[in-house]
Amino acid sequence: MEQRISLVTLGVVDLPRAVAFYEHVLGWRAESSPPGVVFFDLHGVVLALWPHDELAKDMGFTADRLPAYRGYSLAHNVRSEEEVDEIFARLKNYGATILKQPQKAFWGGYSGYFPDLDGHTWEIAYNPFWTILADGRVSMKEIKSDSR
Amino acid sequence: MEQRISLVTLGVVDLPRAVAFYEHVLGWRAESSPPGVVFFDLHGVVLALWPHDELAKDMGFTADRLPAYRGYSLAHNVRSEEEVDEIFARLKNYGATILKQPQKAFWGGYSGYFPDLDGHTWEIAYNPFWTILADGRVSMKEIKSDSR
Repeated sequence: MEQRISLVTLGVVDLPRAVAFYEHVLGWRAESSPPGVVFFDLHGVVLALWPHDELAKDMGFTADRLPAYRGYSLAHNVRSEEEVDEIFARLKNYGATILKQPQKAFWGGYSGYFPDLDGHTWEIAYNPFWTILADGRVSMKEIKSDSR
Repeated sequence: MEQRISLVTLGVVDLPRAVAFYEHVLGWRAESSPPGVVFFDLHGVVLALWPHDELAKDMGFTADRLPAYRGYSLAHNVRSEEEVDEIFARLKNYGATILKQPQKAFWGGYSGYFPDLDGHTWEIAYNPFWTILADGRVSMKEIKSDSR
């Protein structure tokens, strides 16, 4: 697993209100984003704002595990579905806890989630619509990288 | 406020145990770090592992506000103390909540904290020991940037 972070997702109560805070108070500009989520391009790292219920569900926090939901997730994007599987095989080999096994995602990618020892969650994701640059930063432009 | 993230700090229960997870399970390598905190250089973004009590205290979560502590913080580093103050003046102007007013930090820098509307905390920091590269990424090497 390369040493980098691709995405920080923050769960929010009211998406337009949250976006307004980042745009009007911090002065940032959101990217054109799919419905229901808003991305900010932070020069190679993406900040995502996503309603709490969607984020919790995506992370695999079903009713019985919901109290452990912290309201955010970090993500590490890789260049193929196989690379996602390899990382989860490594995690399993070490006996690490898995929150959500890698699987096809509703947004067209492939991802899974695991918590670190203190409950901070990481998503490992392959997103065919984003590009991982040679230096590991993520680009929201769909330019296929030749660096895989 | 430029559109970038400098640091993700995760609160941990047991620092050596947390570092071992990131090094042995994820395969990352920690930087040489000051006592009591451990930094991972993620190509322009830093991941910090720091014991919960220290993080909570640094963020300004005193006993009466401790229940709001979420166990992590995002940070945006700037190039001077004045720039920290300018951002907090802007936040105040918008009526944003301030968690900790900018002040000299025990580690030799200058920083303050604010929560976004959903309680996700951001630190705005000037760290004289780190460099902000021209593209906004942070370097843990103390090379003074000429881009301020």
